[in-house]
Amino acid sequence: MRIGLLGTGNVARALASGWRGAGHDVVLGSRSPQERGGAQELREFTVVGLGEAAGHGDVVVNATPGTASMGVLGDIGAAALRGKVMVDVGVGFTGDMELSHPNYSLGEEIQAAFPETAVVKTLATVDSAVMKDPGSLEEPGTIFLSGDDADAKRTTRRLLGDLGWADASQLDLGGIVTARGQEHAAYLFLGVAESIGAYGFSFKVVRPRAA
Amino acid sequence: MRIGLLGTGNVARALASGWRGAGHDVVLGSRSPQERGGAQELREFTVVGLGEAAGHGDVVVNATPGTASMGVLGDIGAAALRGKVMVDVGVGFTGDMELSHPNYSLGEEIQAAFPETAVVKTLATVDSAVMKDPGSLEEPGTIFLSGDDADAKRTTRRLLGDLGWADASQLDLGGIVTARGQEHAAYLFLGVAESIGAYGFSFKVVRPRAA
Repeated sequence: MRIGLLGTGNVARALASGWRGAGHDVVLGSRSPQERGGAQELREFTVVGLGEAAGHGDVVVNATPGTASMGVLGDIGAAALRGKVMVDVGVGFTGDMELSHPNYSLGEEIQAAFPETAVVKTLATVDSAVMKDPGSLEEPGTIFLSGDDADAKRTTRRLLGDLGWADASQLDLGGIVTARGQEHAAYLFLGVAESIGAYGFSFKVVRPRAA
Repeated sequence: MRIGLLGTGNVARALASGWRGAGHDVVLGSRSPQERGGAQELREFTVVGLGEAAGHGDVVVNATPGTASMGVLGDIGAAALRGKVMVDVGVGFTGDMELSHPNYSLGEEIQAAFPETAVVKTLATVDSAVMKDPGSLEEPGTIFLSGDDADAKRTTRRLLGDLGWADASQLDLGGIVTARGQEHAAYLFLGVAESIGAYGFSFKVVRPRAA
């Protein structure tokens, strides 16, 4: 599959590395590809402009900081994103460590702004290392999906599988409105990280014992 | 221990039943104890006025609906709550299913309004049945604690243990500011409940595999 990752940070690099390892054709998109492409940590990747990355992908992945995402996507424009699957992994946390989308979500905002793009929110409740290496956990965690388009969610499930997330570990929460759950969990994520002294953990849904 | 539970709903009754079973001296507080005390589902409990319930408890438990809690606590007054441990299990969700305390928390608001009361937030990420019967889960889940007072958290840990939450399942997130994590997880809780068709689940923190 052709994947255009928007962003060149930890998250973008982790996902690029994971999906490339699974045989996908991956590029990273940057506002300043010449400059960023020379950076040591990006040496192994193909870094192109944002519009080119969007054009490259059957699937476009928003791996930009959540507070910057709408600006980046607006620059790319609706035409370049039309008909694509967009996997959104961003969480908007401001410099004051507050959610940029209280009682709402970045995932919903992207879907509302780009109605001809099928947005799927996922991977918002784990850090970049766990995203691409769920086997680093003591036992399988749960990874969540939110989106209005069933085909786009099927594609996303396959891509999660390629990163090592077993099908049984993937939980479809429902429509894109449920992206709120994934994004609002950021506060609990940070509290747990501080408490256990590690970011490389995951939440797991423990079900009721069968009656 | 003497426990005054504020509220007479599902949560208050579940906790009252659990703690009474562990040998504690529990009363439930209601705005209209005469009227409520006659209700079938409350027949087995002692229902008193709110002020009397607060006076009864070495530990006072806020089990009122999150959107009503500040009104109830204001009626009781700071003097009646001074020097007590307050275990707050409320989540403020409005009729529109939005958090009443975005980028903030009910736990913090209570602590700020009652500085001479030691507030501990806990049990906000599970439903009433799981609160008092964590053994109903397929495997142990994680229950979180947030609070500024170490003694109050120790007392709360013991009370969680009395409900069946093993010490290893209890995760201290830090100060009362981390109540945000527990309360903001309400969106994810609702999404998961809708997805799996059950409220009787729990989140569990899955740690990184030891290096």
